[in-house]
Amino acid sequence: MGIQQVKASVITIGDELLIGQTIDTNSAWMAQELNKIGIWVHRRVAVGDVWDDIWHALQEEERLSQLILITGGLGPTADDITKPLLCHYFGGRMVVDPGALANVKHIFEELLKRPLIERNLKQAEVPDVCRVLQNRRGTAPGMWFEKEGRIFISMPGVPHEMKGMMTYDILPELQERFTLPVIEHRSLLTAGMGESFLAERIADFETQLPSNIKLAYLPSYGMVRLRLTATGRSERLVAELEAEFDMLKSLVQDILVTDHDIPMQEVVGQLLAERGKTIGTAESCTGGYIAHLLTSIPGSSRYFQGSIISYANAIKTDLLGVDPDVIARHGAVSRETAVQMVRGAKASLGTDFVMVTTGIMGPEGGSPEKPVGTVWIGLGYGDAIETHPFHFRFDRQRNTELTAAHGLNALRKFILQHS
Amino acid sequence: MGIQQVKASVITIGDELLIGQTIDTNSAWMAQELNKIGIWVHRRVAVGDVWDDIWHALQEEERLSQLILITGGLGPTADDITKPLLCHYFGGRMVVDPGALANVKHIFEELLKRPLIERNLKQAEVPDVCRVLQNRRGTAPGMWFEKEGRIFISMPGVPHEMKGMMTYDILPELQERFTLPVIEHRSLLTAGMGESFLAERIADFETQLPSNIKLAYLPSYGMVRLRLTATGRSERLVAELEAEFDMLKSLVQDILVTDHDIPMQEVVGQLLAERGKTIGTAESCTGGYIAHLLTSIPGSSRYFQGSIISYANAIKTDLLGVDPDVIARHGAVSRETAVQMVRGAKASLGTDFVMVTTGIMGPEGGSPEKPVGTVWIGLGYGDAIETHPFHFRFDRQRNTELTAAHGLNALRKFILQHS
Repeated sequence: MGIQQVKASVITIGDELLIGQTIDTNSAWMAQELNKIGIWVHRRVAVGDVWDDIWHALQEEERLSQLILITGGLGPTADDITKPLLCHYFGGRMVVDPGALANVKHIFEELLKRPLIERNLKQAEVPDVCRVLQNRRGTAPGMWFEKEGRIFISMPGVPHEMKGMMTYDILPELQERFTLPVIEHRSLLTAGMGESFLAERIADFETQLPSNIKLAYLPSYGMVRLRLTATGRSERLVAELEAEFDMLKSLVQDILVTDHDIPMQEVVGQLLAERGKTIGTAESCTGGYIAHLLTSIPGSSRYFQGSIISYANAIKTDLLGVDPDVIARHGAVSRETAVQMVRGAKASLGTDFVMVTTGIMGPEGGSPEKPVGTVWIGLGYGDAIETHPFHFRFDRQRNTELTAAHGLNALRKFILQHS
Repeated sequence: MGIQQVKASVITIGDELLIGQTIDTNSAWMAQELNKIGIWVHRRVAVGDVWDDIWHALQEEERLSQLILITGGLGPTADDITKPLLCHYFGGRMVVDPGALANVKHIFEELLKRPLIERNLKQAEVPDVCRVLQNRRGTAPGMWFEKEGRIFISMPGVPHEMKGMMTYDILPELQERFTLPVIEHRSLLTAGMGESFLAERIADFETQLPSNIKLAYLPSYGMVRLRLTATGRSERLVAELEAEFDMLKSLVQDILVTDHDIPMQEVVGQLLAERGKTIGTAESCTGGYIAHLLTSIPGSSRYFQGSIISYANAIKTDLLGVDPDVIARHGAVSRETAVQMVRGAKASLGTDFVMVTTGIMGPEGGSPEKPVGTVWIGLGYGDAIETHPFHFRFDRQRNTELTAAHGLNALRKFILQHS
């Protein structure tokens, strides 16, 4: 049997997505997982809790895709109209599913220890023209419909419920059903060169790529991630992709951060783990964000020890031993304060490496000499201390994110240089 | 002139959105801002860097909406095909825009101090059938097209560039162009009651709502946000909405967290600011995430003083004075350790309130007695100490988010009770 190219659409349903109250993280996750098994999501559509808009989206995606995944609109409340609509669309009638009913009862009686009400029982009703996908993580069942060679799968919008259903039921079934092509990605992260200069440097490389391998540029926070994607049928595909990826790596050797698809905090964590070194942070302006990023990586307790978040100057002087005179003379946001924070953090936390931040994130607190976005990063290892000034020009959130990204990149180079 | 109902579609372009490498935060922001001025985004569509898919999306949205906003696909590299496609779609030819050229030159020569290369100059080229929107935050210009009563606006995908263009140019122009209806939202947050029980309680309220006011349920982290949305033309609209919102508030008085559309960390921050009280945290399992949430609110330095992130046990004993025997006897994740962390945090940070966390976030570190998701929260004020155990059952990220959400809600009640 030949390889089958399956094109998929994702439809997300809910007013909250259209008024901007909720950011859709579901469809990115779904696309990623489908991509891994060789299904290309070529369209994602979001519509509100509006009968005609949902109906139209189903019709349109049915025309364009063989697989249509639907999330949202399955809750127990009156704003959710997806289930009756699907029943109508596929020409069925509502019946109680015994498996879904047992699941709802189990959740309420055994786990929540709450009485079941009529509204919850309704969650066990499904159109009689679908196959039910049991929800291992909640009350709303999934539904698998087929119509003229098209597959429609409706899932709850709660991310961990959707993920459970995809992982345990839907992805394995799709892999069994179709003979899918191989899609492979390799990506690397560069720092220190703008997108257009990088493009000049690798223009010849891009031109010579075979037609089944695509290059993409993904800039973020002043760094650029490059991604090669190969699509194909043969066993040689991975070897071909690896050869091209090796060539690309050699072209960006001097600005290469990592040749894995991992975030900067994981790159730093791996360097520390390999060297058996520990780290701690002293954060003023980033308020714990860098510690949060470092500890978001599983197993980070091997190298991350702790932090002192010195938002108030009293904490800088009491817990980090920063001289109040230095703050009075140079300001809390200064090279001098950053240096004293490095010394204090090393003494208090006792880690091999320390990283400190002090800056003005905005919207308040800026001055003509030190506008919003002024940041000092400090790094320490043994007796070595390094400081870096930054001048970001954005809002509070982005200034914080940029400080973390550039600070962690400076830390990465500092670790490579000193250990 | 009568009120005009303008329906909008948002099209986002880029393979990175479809393989799940990037989460789309742009369209949520755009929808929110458009909604504020009375434009309803009824569809959001994401397509890849594929000529036919982009072309089809333009045709389809042109049929369904009067306003089509497009982001992405305008970078200087070869994977970006949006600009030539738009030129072709609207039947123009590419010309250099003097304003865009001056902007590109200014950015490279004055700000980046780097030589301009051919590829950057190309960014100043635009179809001669559009009006150029200058980019105050980057090199890629925006483009405003009109065709048979439809408006198409193309913007860069870099969030802060898109936001600048929307804020300074597009939103004001749309408001001038159309006589838009009033759309008003009111939302409140409840904690401690499931969605279906809440729905039972307010069923009669929902039934009596006038047809121009809609109720939506937005559950997250075991809490439920309720949103009323009113659409209309008269000056009485806001008064009508306020009256319904007051009724809703009175129905959920006992479980009400806030009647503003703000996150829990801002609710807590307001309580502290009103009372002139300070707070600090000692975080083990949350690794600085709660400090990050608290400091993400502008002006949080009025009440947030600092934190000790005690990831390693040595930090718990050295900086928080936790007795090593207590850790040895009861474990780092225990009520006893949480209590000592509260005392230590109060002594070290000197704040009025303290909040501490210790737990096992996973995937490693669990045991039969203390599985992954076991968390102790501790709260302190004066001599009062309160502890709460939690048992979450999810992955590292969600366990961390749930700890923060439930911990901050416990803190909120603790503040109300003690000051």
